[in-house]
Amino acid sequence: MKPDAMLLLNLCQIEERMAPMPGSRVRTRLSVEQRRRQLIQLGMEMFSSRAYEDILIEEIAHQAGISRGLLYHYFPNKRDFYLAVSKAAVDEIRDLTEPDPSLPAIEQVRRALDVFLRKAKERSEGFLTAYRGALAADPEVRGLVEASRVFQSTRVLKALGRRDPTPLLQLAVRGWVGLVQDVTAQWLQHRALDGEEVRDMLVATLEGAIAGAS
Amino acid sequence: MKPDAMLLLNLCQIEERMAPMPGSRVRTRLSVEQRRRQLIQLGMEMFSSRAYEDILIEEIAHQAGISRGLLYHYFPNKRDFYLAVSKAAVDEIRDLTEPDPSLPAIEQVRRALDVFLRKAKERSEGFLTAYRGALAADPEVRGLVEASRVFQSTRVLKALGRRDPTPLLQLAVRGWVGLVQDVTAQWLQHRALDGEEVRDMLVATLEGAIAGAS
Repeated sequence: MKPDAMLLLNLCQIEERMAPMPGSRVRTRLSVEQRRRQLIQLGMEMFSSRAYEDILIEEIAHQAGISRGLLYHYFPNKRDFYLAVSKAAVDEIRDLTEPDPSLPAIEQVRRALDVFLRKAKERSEGFLTAYRGALAADPEVRGLVEASRVFQSTRVLKALGRRDPTPLLQLAVRGWVGLVQDVTAQWLQHRALDGEEVRDMLVATLEGAIAGAS
Repeated sequence: MKPDAMLLLNLCQIEERMAPMPGSRVRTRLSVEQRRRQLIQLGMEMFSSRAYEDILIEEIAHQAGISRGLLYHYFPNKRDFYLAVSKAAVDEIRDLTEPDPSLPAIEQVRRALDVFLRKAKERSEGFLTAYRGALAADPEVRGLVEASRVFQSTRVLKALGRRDPTPLLQLAVRGWVGLVQDVTAQWLQHRALDGEEVRDMLVATLEGAIAGAS
């Protein structure tokens, strides 16, 4: 076990023995894993609806009812916390957009887009943080965006029943997945349109890309 | 006149009076504007074919036959030089992709894509610098990429004869222009495909996007 992990464990054991402090939220006894999940859940709510720049890490500690010191042992800074929250959000979207192979390919894509657009809208501030502003240039944030593009491209190709796709089709689908994220970011910034219109346009764009690559 | 500009002018006047130095390239007498154009032309050649990281600014001075000191008065660092070269490259591509309004809309787009893909291939290293690595995160580089997307979107909408495009069509075309740049960057990194195949796929993707937004 690394020294950091040891320290963290000790701190958490100390925390377990602490009595609730008067005047603050009741401090509940959570395991390291439970506490981490609680903090990420809290981060999901905060980053979803408020600009990254407006959130202070101290506020997160306060809302979780833990000390700043303990929070910093889970997440050394706001950027690390945002990254952990984003990873959890990406994982959740992956699970929610799991295609149903009994449906026609385009219907699988349509349903996945509905979920994706709804979640992106619910969490617009957190989503936009990954696409604009200072953190959009962060190598790990970019890595996360890139990894999700590769994953979703593979999934779309599989839904299309293309086990051995040509390089051109791979390029087309890969480009389209990037377009979905890009268009979503634009849409979230200027919401003159409802999600269904945007979804239908995205589906038709994919159909055009597939036709052009076949 | 700002002090920097004064200094630059003085340095250039000194340069004008200098005799060619033995053992180096012949120093030619150029005005400030001519020298700037010469340096940008040189930068275009160097950044086109070699990775940004591999080019030393001293080498540019040497090839231009001027002193390092003088070069630094035109471009304080390599990033500024790259940015000036990129602006010139973007302007050139704008001119070369000027649509011919006598042609059908899709034919205008097809021709512009041919020029764009050919130029991006000729200058692949310089193009990729704007899309990957450290400089891709630079706010001015991103601003340049963003401005070229807005410009080309407007041009495509105009070619389509949509003087008053719906927000959905604007979003579709804007997303497609981003896809063109994204797909081009991917293509330049893994060139298993020829330009015409990629161009036809891009045209079909635009047709899908337009159909979906109409």
